Amino acid sequence: MIYALAMLQKTYLMSPGPTTVPAEVLAAGARQVIHHRGSEFRELMGRCLERLRDVFRTEGDVLVFTASGTGAFESAVANLFSPGDRVLAVTAGEFGDRWIAMAKAYGLDVHELRYAWGETPRPSDVAERLRETGAGTAFVVHSETSTGVVCDLEAIAVEARSAGALLVVDAVSSLGAVPVETDAWGLDVVVSGSQKALMTPPGLSFAAVSQAGWQRAAEASLPRFYFDWAKLRKALEHGSTPSTPAVSVVAQLDVALGLLLDAGLEAAFARHAALGRACREGAKAMGLSLFSPDEERSAVVTAIRVPESVDARELVRSLRDRFGITVAGGHGELASRVFRVGHIGHYDIFDITTTLAAVEELLVEAGAEIERGVAVARALEAYDQPARV
Amino acid sequence: MIYALAMLQKTYLMSPGPTTVPAEVLAAGARQVIHHRGSEFRELMGRCLERLRDVFRTEGDVLVFTASGTGAFESAVANLFSPGDRVLAVTAGEFGDRWIAMAKAYGLDVHELRYAWGETPRPSDVAERLRETGAGTAFVVHSETSTGVVCDLEAIAVEARSAGALLVVDAVSSLGAVPVETDAWGLDVVVSGSQKALMTPPGLSFAAVSQAGWQRAAEASLPRFYFDWAKLRKALEHGSTPSTPAVSVVAQLDVALGLLLDAGLEAAFARHAALGRACREGAKAMGLSLFSPDEERSAVVTAIRVPESVDARELVRSLRDRFGITVAGGHGELASRVFRVGHIGHYDIFDITTTLAAVEELLVEAGAEIERGVAVARALEAYDQPARV
Repeated sequence: MIYALAMLQKTYLMSPGPTTVPAEVLAAGARQVIHHRGSEFRELMGRCLERLRDVFRTEGDVLVFTASGTGAFESAVANLFSPGDRVLAVTAGEFGDRWIAMAKAYGLDVHELRYAWGETPRPSDVAERLRETGAGTAFVVHSETSTGVVCDLEAIAVEARSAGALLVVDAVSSLGAVPVETDAWGLDVVVSGSQKALMTPPGLSFAAVSQAGWQRAAEASLPRFYFDWAKLRKALEHGSTPSTPAVSVVAQLDVALGLLLDAGLEAAFARHAALGRACREGAKAMGLSLFSPDEERSAVVTAIRVPESVDARELVRSLRDRFGITVAGGHGELASRVFRVGHIGHYDIFDITTTLAAVEELLVEAGAEIERGVAVARALEAYDQPARV
Repeated sequence: MIYALAMLQKTYLMSPGPTTVPAEVLAAGARQVIHHRGSEFRELMGRCLERLRDVFRTEGDVLVFTASGTGAFESAVANLFSPGDRVLAVTAGEFGDRWIAMAKAYGLDVHELRYAWGETPRPSDVAERLRETGAGTAFVVHSETSTGVVCDLEAIAVEARSAGALLVVDAVSSLGAVPVETDAWGLDVVVSGSQKALMTPPGLSFAAVSQAGWQRAAEASLPRFYFDWAKLRKALEHGSTPSTPAVSVVAQLDVALGLLLDAGLEAAFARHAALGRACREGAKAMGLSLFSPDEERSAVVTAIRVPESVDARELVRSLRDRFGITVAGGHGELASRVFRVGHIGHYDIFDITTTLAAVEELLVEAGAEIERGVAVARALEAYDQPARV
C-alpha cells in the first residue's frame, strides 16, 4: 500500500468546526501572555471589537465571551428573558434542539417549530407559528451544522419583525462564510464563535445585540453573572472584560479577523459558495446523494449519504486512521448513513478535492462502482461555474 | 537616562494573574487545532484530567470549563443551590465580594462574614456564623488576590464540617502555589483557573467536586446549561466536552501541568513560600510596610503600601511605561496607597529582585530615603532562610 510509505502523516481537519487555523493565526497563540487590564490589551481588544462589528455588519455592540458558542447562546437566554417567557424555537437539527433544551432548562415556555432533520425552515411557517403562539421571541439556527442546511435568514427576519417578535440567531457556523447582515436584516441578537469561519481556535464566542435586545435585557430577570451583558459591555467599553479573558485566543482572533477583512467578506462569501457547490457536485458525480436540499445557500457544511452497502462510521474512521482526514459523522440515527464535510474558514478547492479523492478511494475499495477521478474533475469544474439560481 | 538605550524593551509580567507562561507552554498554543471529538483530543484531555486530580490532590472529579475562574465559580452556584438557599460568604476583599454579588444575582439568601480588606478570616468566626445563620454552605476565598492574604483553609474546613456545612473554595490564585488538599482537608468544591500558578494562558477553569457536592447538585434547581456539572462530567468521562472547548489552551495546560508535576508540587510550594518571604522582606528593608499580615502562608501575591509622598498609581504606571514591568494596583480606595506584586507560577527569586530594584529606583527618584541595594540584598538572603513559624 502506497499509504504506508507516509512516515509522517499529514492531517486534514475537514470538520465543520473547529476548523483549520492559518499558520500566522496559530503563531499568535504562542505569544507571551499580556495583562488584560493594560494598554496593550485595550488596544488589541478595541481592534477586535471594531473588526467584529465589520464582520457582523453592525454599528451596534458586539460582546466577547470566553466560552464556546453554546455559552454565548446561553447569554442570550439569560439576558433576554424572565421565567415563563414564551419563545418559539425553530429546529431542524441538533443545534435547534440544543437551544430548546437550554430554554427549557431556564424555565421558558418553549413552543417548537419542528422540521425533520435536513429540511429547510420556511419563513412563512415562522410567521404563522409566531402568530399562533404569541411568542415574543424566535430562536433560529442560521446554519444547522448537523445537516448542512442554511436557512433564508433575511426572509425569516422579515416575518419575525412583522409578527412583532425579537429574533435570536445562531450564526455560529455561518458568520464569515455566508452573508449575515445584522443591521440591514434587522437581526436582534446574533451569536457566533471563533472556531468556524473566523479561522481562530475555539475559546471565544460573540453576541451582537441590537437596541431592541438591550431594551429587553433591561427588563429580563433570569439570573446571570458571568454572561451578564450589561456588565460585559461596560468593561468592553474600556477595552477589558469583567473577568480574565482568553488573551491568547484574543490575539489570534485579531490576526484572523485582519486576514478575513483584508481579503474582503464578499470574497469569503463567494469562495464558500463555490466550495459548497464543488463539494455537492463532486459527491453527486460519484453517485452519492445529498442528505439536505441541493441549495446554493448551504455553503458551510455538506452532509452526504453513503451507499447502502457502506457504514458511514467506518468511512469516517478510515478517512481519519488511514489518510489523516477528519470529517464529521452523522448524529444519532444518521451515524451509519451520513458523513459531513465542513468547508469553512481557511479552506480552498484543493481541500475539497483531497476529501473527495480519499472518499472515492475508500468507496471503491468497499466495492462501489465509481468512475475513477470523476468527483475531483467535477468539483474543479463546479468551483468555477457561476452560481445556479 | 540609561533606560532610553533599551530599543527593544523587555517586559515582565509581575501581576497576580494572568502570569508569565513558560516558552514550551506558549509553543503548544501554536499547534494546529485538533477536533474535540477525536482520539487525539481524548488522550490529551484524559491526561489533563489525571494531572489535574494530582494537582487538586483528589480522587474525585475535576471538571474543566472554557471560561475564566469566575465562570467556574458560577458553576458552583448554579449547580449547588435552589432559589432562596442560605449561604454564608466569607469576604475580606474583592473576590469575596464578587461571590456575594454572584450569589445574590442567583437569588440566594446570602449572609456575610465580613472583614476589612487585608484581614485574615478566622476559622472560629466561620464556625460561629455558620451556627448563627444555619447556612448549609460556606464560600471562602483561599487566596484573596486583592489583598495577598491566604487564609488557613484546613482549619476553616474543619469548622465547616463540624457545623455540617458544605465548603466551596475559591482556589483560583492558590492552587499550585500553596497547599490545597482537596480530599485530605475535606473540601467539597474547589474552583481554580489556568492562568495563575498553573502557568497556562487564561481560558480554562476548573471545579473539583466531592461526593457531597454531587449529592447536593442532584437536588439543586437553579438553571444551568453551559455550566451544568452532570452533563460535563458525562462528556469528560469520554474525553470530550458538551460544546467545543478551547483546545489550544488544553494543549498548553497539558504541557504546563507536566512541568509542574515533574518538578513536584512540594517543590512548588517551597518555592512560593520562599518567594513570598523574599518579597515581604525586601519591601520591608526599603522601609515600606505591608498591607496585609506578614504571614508565611501568604505566598501568592504581596500587597505593599507606598510612602505617604508617593501615589501608587503613578508608581504602577512608571514601572510599566519605563521598565516594562507590570504589577497590579490596589482596588478602589486603595488605588493610590497600595501596589501588588504577584509571585506565582513560572517565577523565581530574580523576578523578585528585578521588581524590587525597579521599585527602589523609582522611589529614590521620588525622594524617598532608601539605602541603595538593600531590598535586593535582603530578598536574596530571605529566600534562603528557613521559614519562620
